[in-house]
Amino acid sequence: MMGYLFQGWNCRGPAKYRDMLLDTATEEIGHVEMLATMCARLLETSPVETEKAANDGGVVGAVIGGSDTQEAILAGMNPQHAIVTGLGAAPRDSQGNPWNANYIVASGNLLADMRFNVTAESQGRLQVARLYQLTQDAGVRDMFSFLLARDTMHQNQWLAAIEELKAEGLEDTPVPSNFPQELEMSEVAYRFMNFSEGEESKEGRWASGTSMDGKGEFEYVAEPQAMGPEMDELDPPVEPRLYSTPKQPMPPASS
Amino acid sequence: MMGYLFQGWNCRGPAKYRDMLLDTATEEIGHVEMLATMCARLLETSPVETEKAANDGGVVGAVIGGSDTQEAILAGMNPQHAIVTGLGAAPRDSQGNPWNANYIVASGNLLADMRFNVTAESQGRLQVARLYQLTQDAGVRDMFSFLLARDTMHQNQWLAAIEELKAEGLEDTPVPSNFPQELEMSEVAYRFMNFSEGEESKEGRWASGTSMDGKGEFEYVAEPQAMGPEMDELDPPVEPRLYSTPKQPMPPASS
Amino acid sequence: MMGYLFQGWNCRGPAKYRDMLLDTATEEIGHVEMLATMCARLLETSPVETEKAANDGGVVGAVIGGSDTQEAILAGMNPQHAIVTGLGAAPRDSQGNPWNANYIVASGNLLADMRFNVTAESQGRLQVARLYQLTQDAGVRDMFSFLLARDTMHQNQWLAAIEELKAEGLEDTPVPSNFPQELEMSEVAYRFMNFSEGEESKEGRWASGTSMDGKGEFEYVAEPQAMGPEMDELDPPVEPRLYSTPKQPMPPASS
Amino acid sequence: MMGYLFQGWNCRGPAKYRDMLLDTATEEIGHVEMLATMCARLLETSPVETEKAANDGGVVGAVIGGSDTQEAILAGMNPQHAIVTGLGAAPRDSQGNPWNANYIVASGNLLADMRFNVTAESQGRLQVARLYQLTQDAGVRDMFSFLLARDTMHQNQWLAAIEELKAEGLEDTPVPSNFPQELEMSEVAYRFMNFSEGEESKEGRWASGTSMDGKGEFEYVAEPQAMGPEMDELDPPVEPRLYSTPKQPMPPASS
Amino acid sequence: MMGYLFQGWNCRGPAKYRDMLLDTATEEIGHVEMLATMCARLLETSPVETEKAANDGGVVGAVIGGSDTQEAILAGMNPQHAIVTGLGAAPRDSQGNPWNANYIVASGNLLADMRFNVTAESQGRLQVARLYQLTQDAGVRDMFSFLLARDTMHQNQWLAAIEELKAEGLEDTPVPSNFPQELEMSEVAYRFMNFSEGEESKEGRWASGTSMDGKGEFEYVAEPQAMGPEMDELDPPVEPRLYSTPKQPMPPASS
Amino acid sequence: MMGYLFQGWNCRGPAKYRDMLLDTATEEIGHVEMLATMCARLLETSPVETEKAANDGGVVGAVIGGSDTQEAILAGMNPQHAIVTGLGAAPRDSQGNPWNANYIVASGNLLADMRFNVTAESQGRLQVARLYQLTQDAGVRDMFSFLLARDTMHQNQWLAAIEELKAEGLEDTPVPSNFPQELEMSEVAYRFMNFSEGEESKEGRWASGTSMDGKGEFEYVAEPQAMGPEMDELDPPVEPRLYSTPKQPMPPASS
Repeated sequence: MMGYLFQGWNCRGPAKYRDMLLDTATEEIGHVEMLATMCARLLETSPVETEKAANDGGVVGAVIGGSDTQEAILAGMNPQHAIVTGLGAAPRDSQGNPWNANYIVASGNLLADMRFNVTAESQGRLQVARLYQLTQDAGVRDMFSFLLARDTMHQNQWLAAIEELKAEGLEDTPVPSNFPQELEMSEVAYRFMNFSEGEESKEGRWASGTSMDGKGEFEYVAEPQAMGPEMDELDPPVEPRLYSTPKQPMPPASS
Repeated sequence: MMGYLFQGWNCRGPAKYRDMLLDTATEEIGHVEMLATMCARLLETSPVETEKAANDGGVVGAVIGGSDTQEAILAGMNPQHAIVTGLGAAPRDSQGNPWNANYIVASGNLLADMRFNVTAESQGRLQVARLYQLTQDAGVRDMFSFLLARDTMHQNQWLAAIEELKAEGLEDTPVPSNFPQELEMSEVAYRFMNFSEGEESKEGRWASGTSMDGKGEFEYVAEPQAMGPEMDELDPPVEPRLYSTPKQPMPPASS
Repeated sequence: MMGYLFQGWNCRGPAKYRDMLLDTATEEIGHVEMLATMCARLLETSPVETEKAANDGGVVGAVIGGSDTQEAILAGMNPQHAIVTGLGAAPRDSQGNPWNANYIVASGNLLADMRFNVTAESQGRLQVARLYQLTQDAGVRDMFSFLLARDTMHQNQWLAAIEELKAEGLEDTPVPSNFPQELEMSEVAYRFMNFSEGEESKEGRWASGTSMDGKGEFEYVAEPQAMGPEMDELDPPVEPRLYSTPKQPMPPASS
Repeated sequence: MMGYLFQGWNCRGPAKYRDMLLDTATEEIGHVEMLATMCARLLETSPVETEKAANDGGVVGAVIGGSDTQEAILAGMNPQHAIVTGLGAAPRDSQGNPWNANYIVASGNLLADMRFNVTAESQGRLQVARLYQLTQDAGVRDMFSFLLARDTMHQNQWLAAIEELKAEGLEDTPVPSNFPQELEMSEVAYRFMNFSEGEESKEGRWASGTSMDGKGEFEYVAEPQAMGPEMDELDPPVEPRLYSTPKQPMPPASS
Repeated sequence: MMGYLFQGWNCRGPAKYRDMLLDTATEEIGHVEMLATMCARLLETSPVETEKAANDGGVVGAVIGGSDTQEAILAGMNPQHAIVTGLGAAPRDSQGNPWNANYIVASGNLLADMRFNVTAESQGRLQVARLYQLTQDAGVRDMFSFLLARDTMHQNQWLAAIEELKAEGLEDTPVPSNFPQELEMSEVAYRFMNFSEGEESKEGRWASGTSMDGKGEFEYVAEPQAMGPEMDELDPPVEPRLYSTPKQPMPPASS
Repeated sequence: MMGYLFQGWNCRGPAKYRDMLLDTATEEIGHVEMLATMCARLLETSPVETEKAANDGGVVGAVIGGSDTQEAILAGMNPQHAIVTGLGAAPRDSQGNPWNANYIVASGNLLADMRFNVTAESQGRLQVARLYQLTQDAGVRDMFSFLLARDTMHQNQWLAAIEELKAEGLEDTPVPSNFPQELEMSEVAYRFMNFSEGEESKEGRWASGTSMDGKGEFEYVAEPQAMGPEMDELDPPVEPRLYSTPKQPMPPASS
């Protein structure tokens, strides 16, 4: 939701991309509302809640000073749902880490960002599919079937946008395609380097044949060699007033 | 570096993918070393350092109690390079945020992860290209030309791996392709929903034609309607012992 | 504790506020000690500990390689209390997030900060009240009865300080009251805007009558209109050397 | 924006509060858009940009390998605006810390949360007022005059909601008012404790007179005494298998 | 692993220290691989997995919408191992906090850093020893016996490096020893100050006798006195354009 | 400050250690106050402040919409000191990262923790020494001379405590010394492994001679060999309902 909003607001490309980003960003606000509502409803009717009705000590009691094992069983519930949010949803992951903007990608380069988006929808659909398998609750599965379908659409949507960007000549592999490729060290631009034990990696599509961007030939280097000159030592004597350890004892620094 | 290591260590797919991931993870350890060395060398010979030789108060002095404006000029230098690391590199971004594993993606699903990897190399090459434009230093540009070329290879490499996974029938769009698609709400699986003002988004590839996975037809919904039943209110009275605000005043909760 | 310390140390207002802040900050150091002691004592005598005496594998064993279900029951215990702190308290929340200074507010404006303080004591007393309901342990409830009473005092104390600041003419609503109000766009300063579906919000005190600061009349706008000129597009062509996506394909950037 | 959304979605109180919260949450999405647009426009036309047009090395060059002092001057610009976002806005604060949900408060208790909201709008209006003083740019000041007015409204709005909650008997001081006050240690519920040097704090409204909730009398305790029994030591011998330091040397723990 | 890598890459001291740091950094990459492999194997064969084979709802089901208590028992498992990593390891601690570079210390001063390293290996061996006690799994204990031995070596190794640095005259207590000690306020350089209740601290080695660096005599100060002049108040009137609270009401700030 | 408080509160060892920890923790509260006061005073009289008096646009104006280069010069000041704290100190580092409890170590094992403390005082004194060199301000240097002396004491104090713990038989190298050393894989407990290029590491004290704990002989292994059996692949087929990539295509998972 936040990523698509910022990609849309920062978009300087053709209007259809900006509008499309803001369409889907708006949809995602709704998805967050759906999830928050689901959390609140499940907390209302969870076995934990039922248990608490019959048992004054309750679930968090088990953690603090509960007196029997059965209460401890229920302690798998996130205690902050009782103590902090009063059985409401919180913008945190299942381990209590707050959502944060570290994950937001909005680079201004639409191909780079659309690749991020197709990734996000892939990880997202994968996680919903796993969750689907792990519950039998019909209402929850019903909502997941909606989210799974929307993630199907969104994977297709960002892949379509990638095709469109290429077809319109706006961007291509390697991103950014507008950087003059003669300025990169071309002899290593299509070379696969075998740095770990074993050579199974030689069997893959990435080790031979035309490169995916059609601009080179993959080459497999079984024993990559250091290319630069021998690394000189970090020569200059350390700055005495910063007290890093030198090669030889030094007189005290004046102040 | 950390992402490829964990993807490789956790890989249960064919050996060539695991080996390939660990090859490139190992290469990335070297890239971090190159960058750390570059930072240390630039700090040794930067104008800041030169300035300091001639001026006892120095750069950080400008921040703390410096006496003239010229020192303040240099305060754009990250003071932690002098105070915390002694002119060495630190695993932090240009704003001082420490690197962290929030960014590490290793889901076990190789297509989902390869899509992340192609994204990472796209954002990475974009950032190096921008940095290239912003410096005239020949040594720095030389190292960037190497990194740009390797990012070209890596974008191609992960795209090739994506093709290979599809060709071998291991995974496909929509990820995860093994989830039975009849369980998702198929009527919304290929529908583009126009939720923001304007209909420029109708002009894109994502709004009509066969979907990218070949399994549906894109459809443009100009005025999407709510599909579920009217949202009931969150009905049950609030749990009195958690002191959330109810619809009506309630008697005090017993303890 | 940290917030009141920094508010006190940074206070430039009348001495009674500074002294009062440091009085309560010092008290809060004691509250943290009480909580740390409570944690350590509960860990000493918890059923988990008892269980471990009779069972070599113990609680964390259940997570790592335990052999029966009963051990798993106890796994609701935070394993870091055994492994990291040796049955001592740690400055972290119930989800393992370390305490941090993101929450510290010390703006220099005492009314803004006292409002934060009354909020903190309200959330704090609410959480302790919820915890009280969730345990039957007499010793824990005894300590909570002390903390609840002190939070009652502190809510009253910060509310009293707010009254005092107003009575002394040092600050008022809207904060900061010293900003010349004619410089704000007065026509929207007391207007409630109905941006979500439904008009239930019209029924509230905030939708009509004199505003709480006595300086305006609340007005309800059922259908708020955009006020600015039509948003121009972000016009200038993108900077070619930063490789953001433009409206039209561009020639490669020189370097 | 995120806080009001979650407060609204989790609200179980009267409909007018929920609707009001979602009205203002929606307005705040627009405020974020306005700020993102302002950032992008300022980056387009900043002196930095102008400077770059005339100088190939540019602003970030000054940090990496620039050759003259004037470039260093400009290094006060956040380099991530050039390198990471391509002159777009990012959801981060002025020090590069990503926005995060640590700040989101949605407790289910509307008085506790409204107090948070009036705090947020007070700190917010204070910061905008400070920014207003620090720029002469007419366009920026124009937008600030709008935001200042809206923060005036929002301070009044949340204060009005607080009055309404009290008038309707839904909540009162001390929050949560529904917790039976006889269960708290009443003798310390209205006592101000003087814990730091100096007794200036005795002069405040919080030190004498009727408490703000009308339920007690403030009392000033110049020399507060410890109330509990002498703190016993943490008695039980340390668990030998956790290797904490005991009072006496212990034999090795069996395994 | 990351700390030793950065200490090695940044090392400007004698080559044997740099080489030694990179030797052990490389070994630690292997330790992380061992732990990642252990996690994956335990997840494959855990009782949770077994349980799931017999029970379609599974472990996460218990959290979301499970129907019986036994499933709840198993909810102590980190659900992200199922949902996010697909039964693979993740670079996070046992509470779900991502690993981060906040912990990385590489100051350029080798004695300061070696002291950090001996600390890290001490905390590390302590935690592995605790884990050893808490599992009966032979394979896990076997791996722990290896890690315990390596931590024994590494504690000895960093202690040996500390001796070597002193013997070679490169660094000594107090770190940094090259700072001219006459510039510090020598009268408090070996004085123990008794600031908390009780004088048990008088009995320790730190309260009398020659100091550990051989350069002073420990002295016990039972009642430390403030040394500076009476703290003046923060005198200057507050800057009116920043709206902090002053001692006296002020006229509105011009803009 | 926070670390010593928690170590003291959690201490179960002899009373003199607990008392000593709380003595120094209390002293550190004072150090934080001194630093906060120093920050506030420097902000009052900094050239930035002077500049602002003569120039309405001011320092932050340079960032937002300033009109001349001289203002930009001053933008090296942390703008949050003007906007967020009103020229007061904030509990953040020089890059704006909030202080947090990630750094707090309180393990219950006093030798492990005293080693942490001597590290903290070493890094701390190193950083103050560097800052001392970077300013000419007499008042600031005066305060630094006090802090340098106290860090000298504290390095000596924790080293003395380490000696005391050993002398009293409470703890020793390797920490935890109470873990039965025969349970560790003794053949690797004193072996230095040469894993990186070059054998300079052979020349150090850690490569030969009696180990520092007196319990073994250092041994240098120039070419360390893998010790375990060949790593089997992660054998079991992936759990189909979690959609990780298998070695062979699999039929869709039932739900």
